[in-house]
Amino acid sequence: MDTLHGYYFEDLTEGQSASFSKTLTEADVTLFAGVTGDFNPVHINEEFAAASPFKGRICHGMLTAGLISTVLGMKLPGPGCIYVSQSLRFKAPVRIGDTATARVTVKELKPARRMAVLETVCLVGGRKVLEGEAVVMVDARPA
Amino acid sequence: MDTLHGYYFEDLTEGQSASFSKTLTEADVTLFAGVTGDFNPVHINEEFAAASPFKGRICHGMLTAGLISTVLGMKLPGPGCIYVSQSLRFKAPVRIGDTATARVTVKELKPARRMAVLETVCLVGGRKVLEGEAVVMVDARPA
Amino acid sequence: MDTLHGYYFEDLTEGQSASFSKTLTEADVTLFAGVTGDFNPVHINEEFAAASPFKGRICHGMLTAGLISTVLGMKLPGPGCIYVSQSLRFKAPVRIGDTATARVTVKELKPARRMAVLETVCLVGGRKVLEGEAVVMVDARPA
Amino acid sequence: MDTLHGYYFEDLTEGQSASFSKTLTEADVTLFAGVTGDFNPVHINEEFAAASPFKGRICHGMLTAGLISTVLGMKLPGPGCIYVSQSLRFKAPVRIGDTATARVTVKELKPARRMAVLETVCLVGGRKVLEGEAVVMVDARPA
Repeated sequence: MDTLHGYYFEDLTEGQSASFSKTLTEADVTLFAGVTGDFNPVHINEEFAAASPFKGRICHGMLTAGLISTVLGMKLPGPGCIYVSQSLRFKAPVRIGDTATARVTVKELKPARRMAVLETVCLVGGRKVLEGEAVVMVDARPA
Repeated sequence: MDTLHGYYFEDLTEGQSASFSKTLTEADVTLFAGVTGDFNPVHINEEFAAASPFKGRICHGMLTAGLISTVLGMKLPGPGCIYVSQSLRFKAPVRIGDTATARVTVKELKPARRMAVLETVCLVGGRKVLEGEAVVMVDARPA
Repeated sequence: MDTLHGYYFEDLTEGQSASFSKTLTEADVTLFAGVTGDFNPVHINEEFAAASPFKGRICHGMLTAGLISTVLGMKLPGPGCIYVSQSLRFKAPVRIGDTATARVTVKELKPARRMAVLETVCLVGGRKVLEGEAVVMVDARPA
Repeated sequence: MDTLHGYYFEDLTEGQSASFSKTLTEADVTLFAGVTGDFNPVHINEEFAAASPFKGRICHGMLTAGLISTVLGMKLPGPGCIYVSQSLRFKAPVRIGDTATARVTVKELKPARRMAVLETVCLVGGRKVLEGEAVVMVDARPA
């Protein structure tokens, strides 16, 4: 089972980085609406969205944010870490069909409580669509 | 089309509140994993999760957070508002089968830029599992 | 392509019958909510539903009704027929996990306009949960 | 919990109306087929559908009808009402990508059994694609 565990606190260094990319499709938006109940017409009503400042349907911000959690929970630090907090600033809309990349970079390590602070950004075509910071608690390497 | 629009900035008052509740099921976790790619074993591997401090699989934090966006985008302020930022502090795990309630309360109104600051919490059985703050930009009422 | 076509009007006889059975799972309810936007709490909030006369979550009535359309469009009369109308009387709740059977029986044939009237019922454990009548228009057999 | 309840019978008046709009996408058709088993080629086989009188794939009629149930169960009368019956007359096809609006209007109130009869229509671009009538039973306002 231990092979499933991600990095231990001692394995982390400032500047370490990992990312995950995914195309956010029509199906993703439909399913995200289905699990959260978020049927804001800007996501599910093309006529309403076309008349909005976005000029068409956009993905749920929390769907894009979910890609950050994918990197944290699967790659850096990976399985075993505990999600303490996340800040999110939505910078630009993500359109249906866009391929978004979430990139996570270790910014600060706090050994006293084994906390890691990570810079978290999402990009579409090189443009920042979401930025913020995550704090996670990371297991010590077993003796 | 205008009947789909939510509250305008002039309609908002401090202390105004709205909520949305949903049971977070096995299917929700599977589909959330499918749309985000977050296959952290604590969510999708019962054996790994049972051996973790959580003693069983838990829901993705961003799935619970998604319920906040449901309230913001559908109820308060509702359709038309623009999501500027969100902070999230994960306080306790949400288990598969838990019914979570997201509650949003207007905390501060900033007329200069038509920004509303909202307190956002998620509760399971009266216990706070997630807390934070959202900032949204809200349309002025058309003349 | 013609091998995909269902019965032609001349092939139908009164009393002819066909059925389709499916277990309606948690995932089906989540997905049905996702495609229709129907987040009535009796379907997606176990706490609300447990306090309702149904004593727990139930499937969307239109999800069960969808099984009738499955029989009409795939079996009797099958591909090529045009759905004209449907009446639905909901007789009893369908619970998550129930296996429902939709059964369709030709009741009356109206050759002038090639219309078929079909009795349509859905059953769970032999008990009628939904009943009604469908009218479909059916192609004449090509010369 | 009571804050989730919709209108009580005493709150309803004839002529009261509510609606819900949604773009019916490729993903919705795929998922609706997946939950109901309705793989009628007119919905999921572009070659068959292109050769049919519809000249291309169309949405499941019961998917469009599902939007009516969304309005009834979430808005008018809203949570707590019990779906008794529904009639549906399919007037025109709904194409993939169409934005459909379901509109429900209270037509008749029957206080003896707390039944409400509602006119139910679905529109695409102002054109009626589906019409019928719903009957729901509505709770009396608690004393």
